[in-house]
Amino acid sequence: MDKELIRKELKVSAIENGTVIDHIPSGSVFQVIKILNLEGYDDQIFLGTNLESHKYAKKGIIKVSNRFFRADEINKIALVAPTATLIVIKNFQVVEKKKVEIPDRIEKIVKCFNPNCITNNEAISTRFTVIDKNELKLRLLIKSLT
Amino acid sequence: MDKELIRKELKVSAIENGTVIDHIPSGSVFQVIKILNLEGYDDQIFLGTNLESHKYAKKGIIKVSNRFFRADEINKIALVAPTATLIVIKNFQVVEKKKVEIPDRIEKIVKCFNPNCITNNEAISTRFTVIDKNELKLRLLIKSLT
Repeated sequence: MDKELIRKELKVSAIENGTVIDHIPSGSVFQVIKILNLEGYDDQIFLGTNLESHKYAKKGIIKVSNRFFRADEINKIALVAPTATLIVIKNFQVVEKKKVEIPDRIEKIVKCFNPNCITNNEAISTRFTVIDKNELKLRLLIKSLT
Repeated sequence: MDKELIRKELKVSAIENGTVIDHIPSGSVFQVIKILNLEGYDDQIFLGTNLESHKYAKKGIIKVSNRFFRADEINKIALVAPTATLIVIKNFQVVEKKKVEIPDRIEKIVKCFNPNCITNNEAISTRFTVIDKNELKLRLLIKSLT
């Protein structure tokens, strides 16, 4: 590993305990913040966008102190950040590393494409079943108005 | 300056060229990102929230690479981050330091409190004149419907 690389990798500081979400597509970093409801989080968050990456063109990274996510919470970000990896940190050490997975059901964050759908016209949230995880095909669980 | 303090201050990494927005109230960091339209910015952004601060209880910081803001752009954040300081960095050196100032006019980012106001009912943006900068009193420049 050359010095330049080390310098770049150190650009977003370490956390003592918490979760690192790495390899987020750069354009999705602030969407991930929103989906995980971190805008009002009261402990430390460190974030970097458009960082150099070995695997991808550019990546974003989010480090959340003292926060550990349940699988169903974190998998919501798979739609905007399918490449994301989760790293659980305890006492500055990596204790777990995993990929996000597209969940079986998706609630609220996806809109129905049918403008007449009840979810676009009344205060009813969408609920989709994922019927194809590779091509990301979804089926709405609430009947539309038409 | 003790070692613990140095460690904390170094937590969000340096940028070579660009703007550092420091002393943002922690709860306003993501609002500042939105107001400055940085969600889709294609160069590096580093951000930290809930950092220790000498002056305030907790602070946020945003570092934007290769971006220099005009006064009228940056002063929009004064409403959510009146304590913010702007630091212009060139070649890793501080070349300018200033405070945000409440602008004379505020467009779009403030909603009219009158629910019948045309700006809340049609696709018309608000435009306020700031009539008192200390108590932040605003006057709408567009007549309301009532």
